[in-house]
Amino acid sequence: MTGIDGDRLLADLTALRHIGQDRTGVHRPAFSNADMAARRWLAERMTEAGLQPTVDGLGNVLGRAPDAETVLLIGSHTDSVPHGGWLDGALGVAYGLEVSRALAPRGHAVDVVSFQDEEGTFFPCLGSRSFVGEVTRADLVGRHDTEGRDLLGEIERNALDAAPWLRLEASRYAAFLEAHIEQGPRLETTGTNLGIVTGIVGMRRYRIIAHGQADHAGTTPMAMRRDAGATLIGFADRLLATVRANADAETVWNVGRMEFRPGASNVVPAEAELWFEVRDLDDARLDVIEREVAACATAVETAHVPVTFQRTSAIPPVAMDQDLVAILEQAAGAAGTSTARMASGAGHDAMILAPHVPAAMIFVPSIDGRSHDVLEDSTAEDIVRGCETLAAAAATLFER
Amino acid sequence: MTGIDGDRLLADLTALRHIGQDRTGVHRPAFSNADMAARRWLAERMTEAGLQPTVDGLGNVLGRAPDAETVLLIGSHTDSVPHGGWLDGALGVAYGLEVSRALAPRGHAVDVVSFQDEEGTFFPCLGSRSFVGEVTRADLVGRHDTEGRDLLGEIERNALDAAPWLRLEASRYAAFLEAHIEQGPRLETTGTNLGIVTGIVGMRRYRIIAHGQADHAGTTPMAMRRDAGATLIGFADRLLATVRANADAETVWNVGRMEFRPGASNVVPAEAELWFEVRDLDDARLDVIEREVAACATAVETAHVPVTFQRTSAIPPVAMDQDLVAILEQAAGAAGTSTARMASGAGHDAMILAPHVPAAMIFVPSIDGRSHDVLEDSTAEDIVRGCETLAAAAATLFER
Repeated sequence: MTGIDGDRLLADLTALRHIGQDRTGVHRPAFSNADMAARRWLAERMTEAGLQPTVDGLGNVLGRAPDAETVLLIGSHTDSVPHGGWLDGALGVAYGLEVSRALAPRGHAVDVVSFQDEEGTFFPCLGSRSFVGEVTRADLVGRHDTEGRDLLGEIERNALDAAPWLRLEASRYAAFLEAHIEQGPRLETTGTNLGIVTGIVGMRRYRIIAHGQADHAGTTPMAMRRDAGATLIGFADRLLATVRANADAETVWNVGRMEFRPGASNVVPAEAELWFEVRDLDDARLDVIEREVAACATAVETAHVPVTFQRTSAIPPVAMDQDLVAILEQAAGAAGTSTARMASGAGHDAMILAPHVPAAMIFVPSIDGRSHDVLEDSTAEDIVRGCETLAAAAATLFER
Repeated sequence: MTGIDGDRLLADLTALRHIGQDRTGVHRPAFSNADMAARRWLAERMTEAGLQPTVDGLGNVLGRAPDAETVLLIGSHTDSVPHGGWLDGALGVAYGLEVSRALAPRGHAVDVVSFQDEEGTFFPCLGSRSFVGEVTRADLVGRHDTEGRDLLGEIERNALDAAPWLRLEASRYAAFLEAHIEQGPRLETTGTNLGIVTGIVGMRRYRIIAHGQADHAGTTPMAMRRDAGATLIGFADRLLATVRANADAETVWNVGRMEFRPGASNVVPAEAELWFEVRDLDDARLDVIEREVAACATAVETAHVPVTFQRTSAIPPVAMDQDLVAILEQAAGAAGTSTARMASGAGHDAMILAPHVPAAMIFVPSIDGRSHDVLEDSTAEDIVRGCETLAAAAATLFER
């Protein structure tokens, strides 16, 4: 028995759902009034749980347990995307609170954390990046949300500017554990109770542009055209075949956008642009795919229609701690909870902490794979089961 | 000798260029003050030339020569696209005026016409379509330009609403002749003096839409996606290969636009749309291409990503009168003017007149193929040479 109180856990999640509620989801962008209210609510729950809460200068909330030989850090984030789901982030924070409460009577010390702006309203993973020392005050200058609000202005508006920033005491923690909803359909589709995350994929993004010339599509013979659109179509087709040929079963990729300019039916495209991204746990595979895709661009370009190939971002993969992965798997198995090892296709705070402290994640099934949407949901049974596994694994870490 | 006065012709074109001048081009959209000023200017020149001008209820200007056994109609349009070139349309009207003046002393009757709104500011080829009886007053209702001006309002503003509409007296004319700039690079590239138009291509336009589902591009495994973008890329590549395989040397086609929705790098496209058009002199070839392209759509669609294939317009090809083509070719050849037979890839008023009266067109070389742009231009030598050919061909028609 882990001592988890499922009703208490669900009551916490429901309380959070009412802060910034938007239909069946929540609207709690970082630094909004709802976001800050959720952080204050959390600090109160921490105090009730016997933790010492601190809200830092960026809105990170850390609840410290009384000092002990072994301390675990469990949490995630309470900010949301605009008009997002009630569980994204909140689930991991509520698990931290519940595990901390459940294990405290056994003398186990679980610190609980809610990082700020994981969703990148102003700065993706701002709170966890700051926590590990990757952010300086200069990095905050000129950061705005899509509605033009200024990050420094929001910090001041919330009277956070005088507060110090929390920093990770790496020596304090045996592990950082983060639970999250899957945000995809695999667990539900395969009837699996829980995902054990082996790593967070690396991601690379590219923009490929073919440069041609606008001409009248009726009066310009085919042989005299410099057709950026046709060149890009040829590239796109090769791209998809090449990536597939170099992918493994876990690789994911996307051409999310194509744009022809000027974009009229009767004008030969002067410029055509394609946005491509690819994610994989293996950085070497991402290297190979990048090289092969660049070769596609070279293969289709001509003197009349040159093609530029630009990498716009590269985030390396992050492996989870293999010892923690095994402990989580065993804890689930001992309770009859079925698991699947899987990569996380999206970024999480655990990705930021992993280089500094052993880190691992679990995924709870998402109904219909929905996420970043007010329709996002998981069953109460899955929610409680995930917390049981996390508590059992935590107990193992304390008691081994 | 044709009696053409090259300086007088160039002076007329320069005078028109000053009406609604926009840098090196003109801005004379149909029914604008500049357009109507050009039409009044033309009516005055007609009177000077011994023609009886009429401005009809749509702004068509027709100058009638004294009745004769054989009468030719020569002209084009004086309206322009926004910020267009000085020769598009104006050239054909100025040729009509000059040929009429040159041949009048020999007793030859050349009526001159400037049709309204060939460029489709409100209604493509409105004037010539009305002239042949294809337009009723009901067709004018609800027509607006891109800036929201109402066609009926413009007619009233220009005090045209009480004037009757001119109608073609088909029995009056032995032929309709229209000169135009090429609007493409073929004549210049091949060093040819004049294009003899064999026909105006038919055009068909299509919109092809793949219907998928938006999903997170990081967390949704490839096998679980309904990727409208990837499906459309596969379609586009097949489309280009299929059209090329079924085209002849004169067929032209274009994919002018592709759009993925929602169009974010990390979202699997829920919907992807492609705009395709194809033009050819042979309607049977257009039928074949349409059938083959539709088959491409069927080939790529799946139960999860259906593809809709929609024809949005179909304009049949129009052949020029083969007798007139031969006479124009001979008239050019006799003067040492090199010619090339070619299809017109764009629509013209001659396309509207051709079913009702024998019609033909000549094309004067365009510098750098530019058109619908203030940089559009042709050399004075080419301009005068084209008019000489038209006058010589007209003389042949009167004197044979």
